[in-house]
Amino acid sequence: MLVLKAKRIEGKGEFVIASPALLESGKISFEMPVKIKAGDHSVVAFAQAIENIVPPDHIGISPELMEKLGLTDGAPVTILQRRPPPSYDLVKKKAFGGKWEKSDIYTIVNDIRKREYTDYELEMFVLAQFFKGLASDELEYLTRAIAESGVRLSFDEPAYDKHSIGGIPGNKVTLLIVPIVAAAGLLIPKTSSRAITSPAGTADTMEVLAPVEFSKEEIEEMAPKARGMIIWGGGLDLAPVDDILIKHVKRHIGVDPKDQMMAAIIAKKLALGIDRLVIDLPTGRGAKLTTEKEAMEFGHDVVNLCRRVAIHAEAVITHGEQPLGHAVGPAIEAREALSTLMGKGSSSVLEKSAEIAGILLEMGNVAPPGKGYELAKEYVSSGKALKKFKEIIEFQGGNPNTTPDEIPLGPYRETYLAHRNGYISRIDNRIISLAAKAAGAPESKGAGLWIHSKMGDFIKQGDVAITIYSDSEHKLSQALNILETYPPFSAEGSVIYRISGLRGESQPGNVIPFEEPI
Amino acid sequence: MLVLKAKRIEGKGEFVIASPALLESGKISFEMPVKIKAGDHSVVAFAQAIENIVPPDHIGISPELMEKLGLTDGAPVTILQRRPPPSYDLVKKKAFGGKWEKSDIYTIVNDIRKREYTDYELEMFVLAQFFKGLASDELEYLTRAIAESGVRLSFDEPAYDKHSIGGIPGNKVTLLIVPIVAAAGLLIPKTSSRAITSPAGTADTMEVLAPVEFSKEEIEEMAPKARGMIIWGGGLDLAPVDDILIKHVKRHIGVDPKDQMMAAIIAKKLALGIDRLVIDLPTGRGAKLTTEKEAMEFGHDVVNLCRRVAIHAEAVITHGEQPLGHAVGPAIEAREALSTLMGKGSSSVLEKSAEIAGILLEMGNVAPPGKGYELAKEYVSSGKALKKFKEIIEFQGGNPNTTPDEIPLGPYRETYLAHRNGYISRIDNRIISLAAKAAGAPESKGAGLWIHSKMGDFIKQGDVAITIYSDSEHKLSQALNILETYPPFSAEGSVIYRISGLRGESQPGNVIPFEEPI
Repeated sequence: MLVLKAKRIEGKGEFVIASPALLESGKISFEMPVKIKAGDHSVVAFAQAIENIVPPDHIGISPELMEKLGLTDGAPVTILQRRPPPSYDLVKKKAFGGKWEKSDIYTIVNDIRKREYTDYELEMFVLAQFFKGLASDELEYLTRAIAESGVRLSFDEPAYDKHSIGGIPGNKVTLLIVPIVAAAGLLIPKTSSRAITSPAGTADTMEVLAPVEFSKEEIEEMAPKARGMIIWGGGLDLAPVDDILIKHVKRHIGVDPKDQMMAAIIAKKLALGIDRLVIDLPTGRGAKLTTEKEAMEFGHDVVNLCRRVAIHAEAVITHGEQPLGHAVGPAIEAREALSTLMGKGSSSVLEKSAEIAGILLEMGNVAPPGKGYELAKEYVSSGKALKKFKEIIEFQGGNPNTTPDEIPLGPYRETYLAHRNGYISRIDNRIISLAAKAAGAPESKGAGLWIHSKMGDFIKQGDVAITIYSDSEHKLSQALNILETYPPFSAEGSVIYRISGLRGESQPGNVIPFEEPI
Repeated sequence: MLVLKAKRIEGKGEFVIASPALLESGKISFEMPVKIKAGDHSVVAFAQAIENIVPPDHIGISPELMEKLGLTDGAPVTILQRRPPPSYDLVKKKAFGGKWEKSDIYTIVNDIRKREYTDYELEMFVLAQFFKGLASDELEYLTRAIAESGVRLSFDEPAYDKHSIGGIPGNKVTLLIVPIVAAAGLLIPKTSSRAITSPAGTADTMEVLAPVEFSKEEIEEMAPKARGMIIWGGGLDLAPVDDILIKHVKRHIGVDPKDQMMAAIIAKKLALGIDRLVIDLPTGRGAKLTTEKEAMEFGHDVVNLCRRVAIHAEAVITHGEQPLGHAVGPAIEAREALSTLMGKGSSSVLEKSAEIAGILLEMGNVAPPGKGYELAKEYVSSGKALKKFKEIIEFQGGNPNTTPDEIPLGPYRETYLAHRNGYISRIDNRIISLAAKAAGAPESKGAGLWIHSKMGDFIKQGDVAITIYSDSEHKLSQALNILETYPPFSAEGSVIYRISGLRGESQPGNVIPFEEPI
């Protein structure tokens, strides 16, 4: 048994460093994972062999792992050549065509939570589900196990929620739906994500108007009073196993298995104590779901899963072929949402928000069946939703009197002009997202795009089609360069796809035409 | 575009180190792979953020990567946020149910060879094949593309070979087959592997008697003269894409897709210029192939693949339920092989060697159909095979006069005694391998086991069942401890399996009952 002294090595993330001399001694194989144990704690890691950082009787450990191990500098640690946890055999059972029992799934999820799996094994876990699919009982147990892997909230009354599976830029409807539903008296403690690959997550956009980070206890206390909140869910340790899978597998492989995605979404809802839910499925070229058939199937499956875990849910298929509204980027989306609540914004944003809020109002018996949409629009036109939104902003610690024009946008601006005449038949979500990110979104709140013309509009060559905002002249020119190189608009009669091997339609959402410069 | 200066950081393997300040600047995402470019060279890497190693305008690079990039200390390098290579879409095409064209496979394999893939993407490539399977044309193209990814040998006459898919300890038949076949005048330039997970690879065993590392040019020149060679194939850059897949995926996931395995084996034979081949498929509990049905299917598939790439092949199913012969470990196996050629060794080793060599003799028209086995045995009994083996040892630079007793074994010895009376019904390959490795094999050539009793033998409680050899008293006791804890013998009437969740029969070869102490 190899016992070494821990040496804290400053840096970010998870790393373990040994001396090359230790490697040469043959006492440890650096090419296979090792298990580092200290008392009751252990982590699994691949060690790097770097000269002049640690003596051979020490092992260098990053601060993040030191903390996880409860170690102090110089303390003894035990190094073992690590073997896969026994539950990995259950993963392989599924891969070889077997079926998971409830206890199999809980055992695997628990080991993932304890970080017993390498990234290789996690990928096998994800891909076994992708390729073999899950029966509905397996999916239910997976969902429950993921939900139970972290913090759970509970409320004394039914909690409402909406969820979009994402994939389209500019989807700021949460900033309208929450105030409408809360104005009707229902409880809607909405957690959202920050952008991972998109130019603005709902939490990024709300953060322009008010703080979004709260603890479990704060949410449980504040939400029933405010009736609605729009907060960042990422800091709450909700369904942490899904975060592990995203960080260590999903974002690296360009594939998000449908069952995994459903389990992750609904597990978070379960952990949040949600009882009633509308799931928005934006569908179309350039969205996550590309065909109505696919969306229908996903919708039925996710509603069925919700029924199994006692969440009353409806799924709605919405247009996902172009960005929603005109704004893409945190600050500019906050402007558009606020304007729309004030009655002078985008009709598409208002319509979609009212449709989804309406269903929640019907679920809560605030509106009779079939009348939710109208009632939702009334909450906006009467100003009640705007009033509630200001209350929510104030409750979360923001300034309720901010007007849309006061929200600062990036000082550097550039316009992208239409290349030819025609009716717009498509706006490529991927190119819009890439350009907004190149301009600096979401890190730079003021960076983003305003899309002047939408599908069905007639544009003339030389018209201003998009305005770009950025905090940096360099980023501005990079964003413009993307739009000029990969025109985002297709006009009727123009070439829609160039089949070059670089941009294929067969795997929408995953084909990036170039390496993104930093 | 981010341009930094390269700083060489001494250490082993592939690593890239940035300063945490650079990470905080947001100019680079350390959680996603970056592409590091210098002139025409580039590598894909995940960077670590470690304090006090490199200034923010530098990037630390390991010597191995410096060399790959053709960099000198202080030279400028360009850092890009790396995107998957376009060919990764072809991998996903397969994952989503599509079929690979010839050009798809060549493009993917070429990008893997250039190290454009992350480990995550490589695993997807391997698992897409595992879960979706390959049609016979896909398998042929994959085999050819892997063969063409590295060095290729060629001979002016038909070259013969044998290959065992491994999985059982003690399989030293190559040391008999090569001399027999070469004694008959056929050309058999046999490359073997060193042990990866087993206690002795054929190259480790041969190395006890003679050097095994030769260049492509040396082999092409020497083999036609010697008629037979037994050499290490690992240093030749044969089918390097398979080495990449083993190192970066297969040994981490505990699954070796059948198609991948076949493509890798036959690609190496193609690269070596082999024309005639016998494939040994050890079958039984504890071997890679567990049932005859599975082995028959594998055999038909691999012979069919050989036909498509113009290799005349036969597959033989052999007993894989226990170690072959009595010796396990490099030096002790060399002893047993040499003794058997001298006519005083294990009958099972002689029989299996003669069966396989006999088929090669028939393929080469040295023996008439059905008479190869007898002729092979004649080569042994007449001493011609031993004479040829000594010539081969001398040709490769070893001492041809070494006798079995002169081959040194580990000085520390211990015996494992039978626990009860009975006929041996099974010897667990996995436990035997683990114990031999614990004793120090294959790094310590003299470490290993001598198994006194084999399946069908009657043993009495207290009989010496196994002798353990080691260079270290500590390792000796660890090896004994493994045998005492996990008895390797099952006797008729004894309990064969204890179903404890730690040792399952459902995934043979992959279940290790404990974490192996270093």
